[in-house]
Order: sequence, then structure tokens, then C-alpha cells
Amino acid sequence: MITIAERKDLIEAALGHQPLDLIIHNVRLVNVYTGLVEPASVGIRHGRVVTLDAQDFQATETFDGGGRYAMPGFIDTHVHIDSTLVIPENLAELIVPGGTTSLFIDPMEMANVGGFEGLKALVHSMDSLPYRILIEVSSRVPTAPGLETTGGELGLDEVKTILTWEECLSLGELDPSKVLGLRDEYLAKIQAAHALNKIANGHAAGLKGHQLSAYACGGLADDHEAVDYDEALARLRVGLAILVRDGSTERNLEPILTGVVRDRLDTRHLMFCTDDKHPDDIRKEGQIDYLVNRAIGLGIPPVQAIQMATLNAAVHFRCDHLLGSLSPGRWADAVLADSLDRIAPSHVFFKGRLVAQDGQLIARSPSAQYPDWVHHTVVVQRGKQAEDFHLKAEGPAAQVRVIELYPDQIINRIGQATLPVMDGCVTADPAQDALKLAVVERHGKNGNIGLTFVRGFGLKQGALASSVAHDHHNIIVVGTNDTDMAVCVRAIEAMQGGLVVASEGKVLGQLALPVGGLMSEQPVSDVIATLEQMTATARQLGCTLPAPFMTLSFISLPTVPELGLTDQGLVSVRDHAIISPLMD
Amino acid sequence: MITIAERKDLIEAALGHQPLDLIIHNVRLVNVYTGLVEPASVGIRHGRVVTLDAQDFQATETFDGGGRYAMPGFIDTHVHIDSTLVIPENLAELIVPGGTTSLFIDPMEMANVGGFEGLKALVHSMDSLPYRILIEVSSRVPTAPGLETTGGELGLDEVKTILTWEECLSLGELDPSKVLGLRDEYLAKIQAAHALNKIANGHAAGLKGHQLSAYACGGLADDHEAVDYDEALARLRVGLAILVRDGSTERNLEPILTGVVRDRLDTRHLMFCTDDKHPDDIRKEGQIDYLVNRAIGLGIPPVQAIQMATLNAAVHFRCDHLLGSLSPGRWADAVLADSLDRIAPSHVFFKGRLVAQDGQLIARSPSAQYPDWVHHTVVVQRGKQAEDFHLKAEGPAAQVRVIELYPDQIINRIGQATLPVMDGCVTADPAQDALKLAVVERHGKNGNIGLTFVRGFGLKQGALASSVAHDHHNIIVVGTNDTDMAVCVRAIEAMQGGLVVASEGKVLGQLALPVGGLMSEQPVSDVIATLEQMTATARQLGCTLPAPFMTLSFISLPTVPELGLTDQGLVSVRDHAIISPLMD
Repeated sequence: MITIAERKDLIEAALGHQPLDLIIHNVRLVNVYTGLVEPASVGIRHGRVVTLDAQDFQATETFDGGGRYAMPGFIDTHVHIDSTLVIPENLAELIVPGGTTSLFIDPMEMANVGGFEGLKALVHSMDSLPYRILIEVSSRVPTAPGLETTGGELGLDEVKTILTWEECLSLGELDPSKVLGLRDEYLAKIQAAHALNKIANGHAAGLKGHQLSAYACGGLADDHEAVDYDEALARLRVGLAILVRDGSTERNLEPILTGVVRDRLDTRHLMFCTDDKHPDDIRKEGQIDYLVNRAIGLGIPPVQAIQMATLNAAVHFRCDHLLGSLSPGRWADAVLADSLDRIAPSHVFFKGRLVAQDGQLIARSPSAQYPDWVHHTVVVQRGKQAEDFHLKAEGPAAQVRVIELYPDQIINRIGQATLPVMDGCVTADPAQDALKLAVVERHGKNGNIGLTFVRGFGLKQGALASSVAHDHHNIIVVGTNDTDMAVCVRAIEAMQGGLVVASEGKVLGQLALPVGGLMSEQPVSDVIATLEQMTATARQLGCTLPAPFMTLSFISLPTVPELGLTDQGLVSVRDHAIISPLMD
Repeated sequence: MITIAERKDLIEAALGHQPLDLIIHNVRLVNVYTGLVEPASVGIRHGRVVTLDAQDFQATETFDGGGRYAMPGFIDTHVHIDSTLVIPENLAELIVPGGTTSLFIDPMEMANVGGFEGLKALVHSMDSLPYRILIEVSSRVPTAPGLETTGGELGLDEVKTILTWEECLSLGELDPSKVLGLRDEYLAKIQAAHALNKIANGHAAGLKGHQLSAYACGGLADDHEAVDYDEALARLRVGLAILVRDGSTERNLEPILTGVVRDRLDTRHLMFCTDDKHPDDIRKEGQIDYLVNRAIGLGIPPVQAIQMATLNAAVHFRCDHLLGSLSPGRWADAVLADSLDRIAPSHVFFKGRLVAQDGQLIARSPSAQYPDWVHHTVVVQRGKQAEDFHLKAEGPAAQVRVIELYPDQIINRIGQATLPVMDGCVTADPAQDALKLAVVERHGKNGNIGLTFVRGFGLKQGALASSVAHDHHNIIVVGTNDTDMAVCVRAIEAMQGGLVVASEGKVLGQLALPVGGLMSEQPVSDVIATLEQMTATARQLGCTLPAPFMTLSFISLPTVPELGLTDQGLVSVRDHAIISPLMD
């Protein structure tokens, strides 16, 4: 929090009694408060904007904006930073040149792996990054108690403690089962957020009708799971703001905003998030800049699209006195661009410092310093042998439940298949795209393995595996045969976390993610190159998904309908119960 | 704060597992989140909305909305409740039938009279009112330390304590002198509000240019002192929201909104307040309903005008999870009306209870119970004799400073006049409308009397006086002669506070305001009748002002430019210094 002395200094600087650190002259300011574009000269002191009229002020440094547009830095309102597969230090080069200067993160991945200490390890270097990380404290670690095994937990007291942190803006996404199930622990967490005048983020996947009203009665403030305009409108109608999500596998922006444009819906309660986006996709498309430009392309007026990426988010998260606009007293996070028709940031300032130019990060990132234990979180008791993946059944064939994937969504539906039984075990059948799916407990706790089948990957041979598996982050593995699945698990344990593609008993590609089994400390370009290679390899094995490892990491969710797979078995999300992969 | 048990009950009710208390069927809901008008059936349980789709639900009571429009109850975002001259219990009948269900009050009047205890006395009955009072805790009691004598004070610790109250939404209006003057005490109060994630209300009368930027750097969130569109836009531009004010003497709505309509300015950061409005004006015009209808009349689309009166305010004050919309989980404060072209509330619900119908309050108000000391706050040491008002000067005439009033504004300008000196004392000169103005200390502390002259009242004979005199609430008296001024002061002491009009040594009219010297416990209709009579009497004495007692009560402000008069003398507001009424 700003000190009184710092506050005085800003006031004095605005009055011209203190020299400025930087003036960005000659810009056309996109004023997100008035909605107007105006000529301005942005004066900055100690990282904060102090005036928009610094024409005649003294400054240590001046910067000629060259008549470009200037707008506030972009905000990602809900992102699992670990989904980028790189540590926050290295993520900077992927997101900052595109204009993203604030990430509101739900650190549930590291919390699931390492609890309170894991969360602290993740955010320990926040202050030295060339962008801002603020926290949506994970409301459910574990997500589905009794249905999954996690490495760590965040209890009510720990959540309450983190909520008091200045860096913590909200209670993180809370799924309907906890709210509609009237669970004291979770309702108490909502109370705790409200008592601190902070909001509680929602996660209302698939919810509608009376259940949606009941969920809003729970005190949640928003939802980022709306997949189309009808769902978005239904949520807005009951007072839930919409975090328009467009990540690697969850592409909701176009269906939502097409409706918004058609109906000229008020956009003030809309903002952007990526939730989960792989580094290759960020490099290819961009991050929040991509969402802003997609919105503009669909017909949202540019200033409104910018407001969605900036002030709307800050107001919703009740931090508009700190960020979200280029206004006196707020952080000087600024993006310059030549055009508003398609925003291609030429310069990005973070806290008044030029941190990126022409698509390149120019701020030096701090070197990563994670505690040693963070690199040793993968302990596998079972899953290293093909036999561990056997699913026994009688007769020549078995009727099984299959998780059917939707393209571009993380929701799925319940399907079924008739699969051959060989030597008393049900086998995958690539011909009908019914592959075996397993989740192997990897926190060294019980050696559980959950089994079922999945349709949508299209693999004709081999197996893929990942130690990123929401939200429990055990090892999830999909395969055409048990041998390759075991090969993958052994490789992941050897790397202490990561992604693997294997076939015919051999590892064909692997990406080590030794930070919590979730993130790499390697340079982003290496991570992307490896990931692209592995995706290409998966494609050679028959896989038809654009981001197979991202998709894989979500089938393990016990909270997104209709089915999820954890180490404890196949979860019927709506019933919040384990069901058998074998049908009667 | 809602308990977990209550929260569960709402959720259950929304799911249809608990009966509703009330269903308002058959309404066209003005949905302030989507901006759309839609058919709805509003289900209410324990005072809160739980669903908009209660068509098929069970309820103890049902109400046929008759196809009327339904909208959230209106919010006055900044009001000095004492300016209505009636106690909160009696105010209900004036404001609730017009649809106002929430007042955000700055209780600085009672705090100036009685400090922390005065504030507590004022709000003690809040919970039983048929409308809601929330607090903007007074940031400056006294307003101008060293320039005025008050009865009570609110120190930093007391302000910090009140800020933690759930009923307290913000730090109340803080004037520029404290911020630009870099005063630790006041900057610490802003910090305290921000630390609790609450906002700090501004009061940027007359501020512009670099001073306005510096003020925004102070961490203030808004301003209600913008008098025209240019001022409003200048404030919005630096990130200060606009509380569009229209009270008895401060009529800013039309000039501001005319520009907003012309420029199609985004209205999301605009909301309404009355600040100070006398009961006769409320009865005649209405309260927030009047502002909404004026806005619509000027061309603001009705749904936007309603948003300004409801959700915009709740979002700005960070209480949108509690009120400001008819959404599940929020208080069921609802207004029904036949038309949106001119909103004439037919029914008003507060916390799910029908409290007003067809312009009449039907909820019983609690009886007033104020502590005894509140009725004994006027102790006058000097000011009861004509001599107390003598202003000595030499020669036959004196050059004096005159406070020149602006019509419909509380700001004023510095004027001057040449006045006759008789028997060594400067006298008023009604012929040039230069009347004597005095402030008499009435808290029993020092017997101070401040003197100067004023132009704008137009009195040809007699005197007017008031113990409502912002913000110190000493006795302010304007007169053509010293004798009548002393008559007024004696009458006010006898009533323990109030308003008086006198002429030729006789009291011609008086209104007792014995609650803190600020408010009456008499029925509103009696108060209004007396006030109207007194205004008529003042007019007979030559007074040309529409609301002379309201105007009188503001000239005592040491914080609104250019001049103010306190018991300590004539205050040059910008210099924050006492100056002589006599020119060199």
C-alpha cells in the first residue's frame, strides 16, 4: 500500500513542486473514464500517473509518444499462470510485449501441489516482475474433497489469512456444488471475502434456471464459464459479471460477443480472461491483446474493448483506485499503439518504466529462485507398470462409459462404447476412438489409479501424459495401450513432472516441468519448441486435437460437467460421486 | 452482515426448497445489469430477492404488479440528513413514497455538534427505518481546525473505528485544502479507508487544472461539487466519478446532464445526490425521483437514468453485492411505476415489505428516542445584545468586504461595499443590499462572534438566523440592524436550536430544531408549514432568495470558495486564513 509520504510526493509532483520521473509526451489518450480520446502528456512519478497535462513540467526523462494512442495496460481477470507451463519470470516475454500488465491469478495449481507453502513459493518473486500479479485466492483446494487426492490443502483459516493480503483481490472461483450444496466451509469463505469488502469469483459452468439464481444468492460476483451469448446474458441478468474467456481450449469470446454486438448490450460488466492458455498459443495469437482485437473485429467499438480489458476489470475487482486507467494516482501501466482498429502495442510501460518495445521484452526479468522442495513433488507408487492400468471385465466385450470431448470447450458429455475384452481386461479401441484414460496419484500418498475411456483424441497408437491435471495435478495419461501409458508415467517421475508422448515402448518427446510438476524454468522459446514438437509427434500418432496436452489436463477436473477422472475414479460431476467406467 | 444460515436459506428458497415470503408477479423488470426490460416475477425471502422467475413458486404473500415497471430502489449518494430539518424517522414520509430507499449520509452535522456520541445518537434507530441509512464517515470534524469552534470532534482513531462498521461505506467528503495541504491526519484517513477496501469521497469545489490532478492523486474517488458539464468532464477525465447534485440551493443537474446528452457521454460513472435539500423542496419536487425524471426529461434514456440512481451508485461504493439491483442475493428494495417516461412510483418495497403506495408512506415509523443531552446543545455566551454585533470603524464611511452570493450555488465571490459608519460602528445598508452577517459561537466554549457583510438576501428590514450553519453549526444571523439580530439569537437559545425571522424587535416566526440544534421531532407537515410561513415572512421583509435559510446555512462554510464566515471571523477559503471584513 502506498505510504503517506509517497502520497504526498505524488500530490507535490502533480502540483509541479517535485520533478517528474518520466513524461510521455504527444499521445492520444484513450480515457477509459470519459470514453473519449484526447491529446495528453502523461506525467509519471514513482511509477504512478500524476497528471495528464505535463506539457510544461520538468522530468528526468521524456518520451515522445509520436502521436500514438495511449491506453492503460491490459488486465487478464482470471488466469491459471501455471497453464502457461513457464514460471512467472519467463512468462513476461510472452505477455508483456502484447500489453498485458496485470494478471489476476488463481494459484490453485501450486496450492494443490504444495498448499500454503506452494502458493507462497509461486508468488515470492512477484514484486520484481515487469508485470503485476494479483491473487484470487483459491477457494477449493482440494476442489472435490473425497473425490481426489492432492498434495496440499488450503483450509478456511489459510484462505482467510490470504484474503487479508493486499495482493489478494478476491476469493477465487467457487463451483456450484459447494454453494448449492450449502457447504459451511465455502460459504464461510465467501463471508470472509465480503467482510473485507472483496468479491468472490464464480465458476458457474453449465448452470441455468433456478440453480443459477440460487448460485447468485450465494454471493458470487461473476462467472467466466459462460460459453455463449445466451449463457452470458442469463448470468448478467442475475447480477453476475462476465469474464469473457478465450484460452487454448475454451473459446467463448466469439459466441458471446457476437450476441453482445447484435443486441448492443451494455459492456460495462464484461471483461476478459484467458483462464488457461498454452505458451505456444500465446506466442502465436497474443494474450489479452488478442482478445481485445478479436472483440474489435467482431464490432465492439475499440474504446469499449479497451475498457473491457482495463477499467471494467479494475472496477469489478474494486481496485480502480490503483489500476485500470491512466488517471492521477493510479499505476502508470501504459500501452502505446498506432491504431485502434487493430491494436499492436509499440511500447509498453509498467509502473512508469518502458518494459517492452516492438514486440520484444526489454526489461530484464529477475532470475528464478524457488525453494528446493518445489523441484521434488512427484512421487509415484503405482502406474509404472502396464498391469497397473488393467481394467478387468468378463465376457468377450464390455459396455463402458466414455468421456466425449466437445471441440473448443472444457465441458464434455457422457458417451458409451462397446470395447473388446482380452485376457480378462478391457482394451482401448483406436478404430472407434475409444482410448484408455488414467489418472495416477503422484503426491506419494496412496498409489491410487482412476480408469475410464475417452473419445476425441484420435490417437491411433502410443500414449500422452501430463503431470498438469486440474485441479489435483496427479498424472493423467491417455493411450491406445497400457505399456505406453506406463512408459509415460515413468518418464514423468524421472523428470519430476512434465509432459510426455510415447509409442511402442519408447519416449518420443518430453517436456520437463519440475517446478511443482507444473512449470518449466527453461526459456519460453525452448518450452514452446518442445511443446510444438510434441504436439506434432502426437499428430503423427493420429491425434486430431489442436492442443492435446491442454485438453488432457482438463479431463481430470471433477467440477466441469459432465464427467471428470481423478485418481479415485470416474466422477459424475453433477452427482458429485464416483461411478464405474463399466456399465451394468 | 448476512449470516451463513441466512445465506443457506436464500439459496434454498431460490431452489424452491423453502417457501418465499413474497412474490411480486407480473412486472416489467428494469434489469440494471443487462440494461434490458424483461417480464419477471420477483421472488423474495427474508427481505432479499432470490429469483426473478418465481412464477411457479410458493409464497406466503403474492402481489400483482399489474404489468408495471419494476426497478431497484433509488440511492441518494451524498446527503446531509440534518439538512432536511427533520429526524430520520420523520423523513421517511418525504422520501420513501418517491422511491428513495437508501441514503448514503455524511453525518458531519451531528458530529460537529456532539462528536462520536452525536453521530451514534443520529444513527441509533437506523435498523427500524423503512429505508436504509449508510454512512460516509465525516472526514473533517471540525472542517477547518483553527478557523472555527465546534461542539465535537472526530479524531483519526474515531474515524478509523467508524470505517470498520459494516454500515460505513466510505470516508466522507474531504476538501482540497486537507489534501493539497499535505495534512497527515487527513491523508491517514484516506489510507484507512483504502486499507478496508472502501472509497474516499471527494469535495473538489472550484478545483481545476493541476490542482485537480493533485487532488485525484490524493486517492479521492469522486466529487459532488461539479457545477456544470465542463467541471464534470474535467473531474471524470482524472478518474473522479460524478455525484450529480441537485438540492435546494445547489442545482447542478441541468447544466451537467445537458452536456452529457449532447456529447453522449458514458453515464456509468455518474450518480445522483441531493447533498442538502429542505423538506418543503422535497415535498414540492421529490427527492432522487425528481433527479431521475429531470434526467429523463433532458434526454438521458430512462434505463440509464435508473442505473444512475441505483447500480452505478452501488458499484461505485462497492456494495453492489448488497443493493443497487433487483438481483438474487440483494436487498429487495423495489419501485413500481406505470411509465418510464416520467417515473411516478405507485408502490415502493423496502427489504421486501410494501412501505409506500400512491405517494403515501404506509410503513409505521419507529418513534424517536434520542438521548436527553441531544436536546440541550445550545449555550450562547455572547450575541444576545445588539452591542455584540457592533463593528467599529473610523470616519463617516468604511470600505468593507462583502460575500456575494451566486444564484443556485453554494460557492460565492468576494465583493466590496462602502458602508456608512454611525456612532463609530459600520452599519448595514439595505439600499445596496449589503447586510450584516454574524456567526455566534453556541457550543458554550468561548463566546466568539465573527462579523462581515453579505449581498444577495435583499432584506429591507429585520433579520434571519439559523443554528444550522455548516459545518460548525454555530448560530448564523443576517440582518439589517443589530437589534433584530440579537432578538434572533435569544430566540434560538430559548428553543435550543432552530430558525428565526425577526423584525422591529419582535420574533415574526420560528421553527424549533431541538435535536442537536439541527432537527425537529415534529411531524414533517408542521415543519414544512412553519418553514413556508417563515420564508413568506422573509419575503415580506424583502428577501429575494428562494430558500433563504438554506442559503444562510452555507455562508458559514469555511471550505467553499471564496469566502466563509465562522465564529472566528471572515475566512478566505483558498488562503485558509482569517481576514478582516474591513478593507485597508
